[in-house]
Amino acid sequence: MSVKNAMTSDFLHSAYGGESMAHMRYLIWAEVARKEGFPNIGKLFEAIAYAERVHAGNHFREIGGTTADAAVTAGGVFGTGKTVENLQGAINGELHEVEQMYPVYLSAAKFQNETGAARSFHFALEAEKIHAALFQKAQDAAKESKDVELKSVYICPICGHTILDGAPDNCPICGAKKEMYVEF
Amino acid sequence: MSVKNAMTSDFLHSAYGGESMAHMRYLIWAEVARKEGFPNIGKLFEAIAYAERVHAGNHFREIGGTTADAAVTAGGVFGTGKTVENLQGAINGELHEVEQMYPVYLSAAKFQNETGAARSFHFALEAEKIHAALFQKAQDAAKESKDVELKSVYICPICGHTILDGAPDNCPICGAKKEMYVEF
Ligand SMILES: [Fe+2]
Ligand SMILES: [Fe+2]
Ligand SMILES: [Fe+2]
Ligand SMILES: [Fe+2]
Ligand SMILES: [Fe+2]
Ligand SMILES: [Fe+2]
Repeated sequence: MSVKNAMTSDFLHSAYGGESMAHMRYLIWAEVARKEGFPNIGKLFEAIAYAERVHAGNHFREIGGTTADAAVTAGGVFGTGKTVENLQGAINGELHEVEQMYPVYLSAAKFQNETGAARSFHFALEAEKIHAALFQKAQDAAKESKDVELKSVYICPICGHTILDGAPDNCPICGAKKEMYVEF
Repeated sequence: MSVKNAMTSDFLHSAYGGESMAHMRYLIWAEVARKEGFPNIGKLFEAIAYAERVHAGNHFREIGGTTADAAVTAGGVFGTGKTVENLQGAINGELHEVEQMYPVYLSAAKFQNETGAARSFHFALEAEKIHAALFQKAQDAAKESKDVELKSVYICPICGHTILDGAPDNCPICGAKKEMYVEF
């Protein structure tokens, strides 16, 4: 807690901005999916919105320090189309985080010996890989005018690990116990 | 819906980023307040987080258009101290929106004849005035180690209007009916 180096601090701020905006647009797109008659895709968006909230909270706490203003530059995805398009926006955003953003942020945090920030970036990176795959699965269904098949979505409140239909005994990313998972 | 002018579009993106980050930090500070033994301040933060979600959603929908990436620069407040300090961060953020950000964004949207954006900025501006006053009331209490006095907080889901202990027949900002208010 309380990052020391300016570059890693910038990346935490940027990641916080990106996660906060992702949380918000997934809540909006959840409503759109439900109105289109895809309650399970709506549930998936809502659950993953919570995972992004976990990431945002982790980054925020790692920034630490006393209360202060900051200007933040962060990437976001905008627009609201049909659910198939919104899922493409979600996939693009997640893949950018998985392939570009978080690997670079994680590498920089390790290079600067910022272990708290590295942990927070690592948690997000691993969870986003799963998000990209789940949104792809949902889009495959929506393209055939079908809802995605799932009963429930479980989110680890420590790292944002996301899994369908049942939580594991221990979170494969952070080790948290089954009982801690939040069910959607 | 679907803003036409680039400058107003930039301001909507920036306001969306700012509201998304405010939503998130108020949720974090709500937890801190509850842990410090201020359940009502926790409830106030949580309710106002929802009002910021309303503002973010309004701005997002006014941006409209097809799904596309954008880099967003937005102001945020960071750090987690005691609740008295967090409330100071909240007051500073709200006052910046009331005195600087939203009046300028609203003036620009009107100048560019962007009626949808102007409506969204107007709703936020009027609600933020109330947020600044309520956070000040909460801080006055917390400075004396007391919780703020309130039974419940009501939020208008159309404009984010915020009022304690009971909703009016019609929202004074947007005219929405009493039944629509969300109670915290
Ligand atoms: Fe995330
Ligand atoms: Fe994600
Ligand atoms: Fe986990
Ligand atoms: Fe707001
Ligand atoms: Fe506000
Ligand atoms: Fe209203």
